[in-house]
Amino acid sequence: MSQDVLTAHRAFYDAVETGDLDLMTSLWVDDTTTSCVHPGAEILHGTTSVLRSWTVLMANLGYIQFFLTDVQVQLPLGPDGDVAVVTCTENILSGQEMADDSFTGGKAVCTSVLVLRGGRWQFWSRHASPVIEVQEVEEP
Amino acid sequence: MSQDVLTAHRAFYDAVETGDLDLMTSLWVDDTTTSCVHPGAEILHGTTSVLRSWTVLMANLGYIQFFLTDVQVQLPLGPDGDVAVVTCTENILSGQEMADDSFTGGKAVCTSVLVLRGGRWQFWSRHASPVIEVQEVEEP
Repeated sequence: MSQDVLTAHRAFYDAVETGDLDLMTSLWVDDTTTSCVHPGAEILHGTTSVLRSWTVLMANLGYIQFFLTDVQVQLPLGPDGDVAVVTCTENILSGQEMADDSFTGGKAVCTSVLVLRGGRWQFWSRHASPVIEVQEVEEP
Repeated sequence: MSQDVLTAHRAFYDAVETGDLDLMTSLWVDDTTTSCVHPGAEILHGTTSVLRSWTVLMANLGYIQFFLTDVQVQLPLGPDGDVAVVTCTENILSGQEMADDSFTGGKAVCTSVLVLRGGRWQFWSRHASPVIEVQEVEEP
């Protein structure tokens, strides 16, 4: 069952990388109380608002690729439950469309809640946040 | 039922404000796969690590008070389910111990997952992140 959760979780990143709004839409429970937090942003409530934000984001992203590390599926209700919490670290490589083929990297952490509906795992909630690196101060 | 979730959710902030580690401990499911993200930080896994981090944080916090706004309880499995997702905005007032009675404010958003165990709602996962305000640029 964890594998099905991971497949839906990975499909989410595939949708962002390929700008596939239909895939993104299919991955969310359609409800007014779902939620999504983009790094550094306020909370968005409801699938309509969440998908609108992804539409705008994906239209402006340009090249982006997610290398996920430390992906962990937690099943708080046991292996037969219908809720999964997935945590991961997103190592993000993105191209700067305005610059000359330059790439930038970034790191975020994410906690997602997925629920099993009609045999499919779908996102109920997603919270991503920037990892703020502590700068090492070099001794003179 | 939402009220019981909210009572546990508020107790969490009471524990931080009063530095009550026993209360904080009682509010978490004791499991190796629970998770917690402090604002700007990496993910912590397992209740032992999570409580250790809160012990250190609470020992160093000094005066702190949380004014919660936009608190919303989501019940992805319906009103009889045993999982709740709570989102809120934390408006934080904290005293600077080293300064002369000065106060600083901050804002974070938080998504928590609580589960019903033995008749009590307990935290399974918590993800808090800073709200990064976009600075308005004043026209000259």
